[in-house]
Amino acid sequence: MDNTRRDFLKAAALSGAGALLLPAFASGSPKKKAARKKHAIKLREGAIILFQGDSITDAGRDRKNSESNNTDAIGHGYALFATGHLLEKFAEKRLKIFNRGISGNKVFQLRERWDEDCITLKPDVISILVGVNDYWHTLDGKYKGTLDKFLTDYRELLKYTMQKLPETQLIICEPYTLKGGGAIKPEQWYPMFDEYRKATRLLAEEFNAVYVPFQTSYDKAVKRAADRYWAPDGIHPGLPGAKLMAGAWLKATGLRKSGKKKNKKEDSDLT
Amino acid sequence: MDNTRRDFLKAAALSGAGALLLPAFASGSPKKKAARKKHAIKLREGAIILFQGDSITDAGRDRKNSESNNTDAIGHGYALFATGHLLEKFAEKRLKIFNRGISGNKVFQLRERWDEDCITLKPDVISILVGVNDYWHTLDGKYKGTLDKFLTDYRELLKYTMQKLPETQLIICEPYTLKGGGAIKPEQWYPMFDEYRKATRLLAEEFNAVYVPFQTSYDKAVKRAADRYWAPDGIHPGLPGAKLMAGAWLKATGLRKSGKKKNKKEDSDLT
Repeated sequence: MDNTRRDFLKAAALSGAGALLLPAFASGSPKKKAARKKHAIKLREGAIILFQGDSITDAGRDRKNSESNNTDAIGHGYALFATGHLLEKFAEKRLKIFNRGISGNKVFQLRERWDEDCITLKPDVISILVGVNDYWHTLDGKYKGTLDKFLTDYRELLKYTMQKLPETQLIICEPYTLKGGGAIKPEQWYPMFDEYRKATRLLAEEFNAVYVPFQTSYDKAVKRAADRYWAPDGIHPGLPGAKLMAGAWLKATGLRKSGKKKNKKEDSDLT
Repeated sequence: MDNTRRDFLKAAALSGAGALLLPAFASGSPKKKAARKKHAIKLREGAIILFQGDSITDAGRDRKNSESNNTDAIGHGYALFATGHLLEKFAEKRLKIFNRGISGNKVFQLRERWDEDCITLKPDVISILVGVNDYWHTLDGKYKGTLDKFLTDYRELLKYTMQKLPETQLIICEPYTLKGGGAIKPEQWYPMFDEYRKATRLLAEEFNAVYVPFQTSYDKAVKRAADRYWAPDGIHPGLPGAKLMAGAWLKATGLRKSGKKKNKKEDSDLT
């Protein structure tokens, strides 16, 4: 039994999920190796990209504005920094980029609005960052969700998505926390929240999705400046954290560079 | 007489400024060559950076929020994209970045609030983008400013700044237009607006400031996507234009890269 599986089973036991989790690992294993090879997102001309998730994705966007490529509609978080990069770097591709993150959302709430806020947009690329609320909201006892519910709901959401949009490219983002942030009491959060993080990685492997390891990015970043420099409450990024996340997203998706020849460097400067 | 001087005299004649402009060129010439060598902005630990200008800099910022490094306070334009880059790339330096751009401002209006909105902040670096309104607002006859007033006011503003803050590093940004934008009637704008652009370049040379050639960036960009992709009205950037400008700003200032060794590449990925 490898460590990942052992940790997961331990978490499953903690959450009362138990045997329900087992089939996932059994069926997931053969796919793992194949998924581990790096793959990049491919963008056709006119590709539609959708950012989905909770408040971290929402980031103050104007929900009445449903336009693509619009600053108010994209909000002011990592999705904005990533979108700016994509729209500049791939200007010739006439991408259409949307954000439909909604503050406070857990996976089951994404599912409730998935037809309207995902499927009908027919995205070529769907990026999802969800999970922190699925755990956070249990801490005051008002939300009764478990790790197993998170995993099951998330898997069903992804299955449904691939049934409806078989050609779509999935990006699954790792939920993260910064231990020194104002909203984080470590004894409440760990090790249980780590299991939610791991669940997203397993799903990324299962669905052959690109995985964006935000926790790894923040773990490196806090060696350069304090946790609260990046994300004051340890959950919602400040300006530096949003930019950091966009960088991690672009790196993981293989979309940092346009792939043009080097003599075009001047036109495709990275910022 | 070189072309720049000839064009400028022509413009001066057009604007009725005449001989008033001559001393500027006479005294400016010897400094030109020295200023032409590339120089980069240097950032000490804790450096204060100020973005100043008109609506393009303002970009929907919350003017009641005077915090540094805050997304709402920085607004959602090129200053945000540049700030995100700086705060991530130079996290160790604990920079403090402010935006005090105000929509509609012309040079004389910057001067009216310069003590409060610039000098008292004691910035190590001041970046100014102004000029489009100094011309635009003359087109409906409501504002009577001339090219000469623009140049004189701007020079006085810079002189005053250097008297009060002799160690500050100046960045002068080129005002620009995109001919195909909705607010631009070419026969109204050119060639006169070009003279306003040139005036800012001359001032940058005179004050040994870093110069950010936004017009050049947009001239290249419109070969990749239509004018309105970058800036719908030809003046205010959309999301792609804001990102493009941040890239041009970072390149001109020498702040795109942190200057760390290549083996740190992974931590300093550009986005």
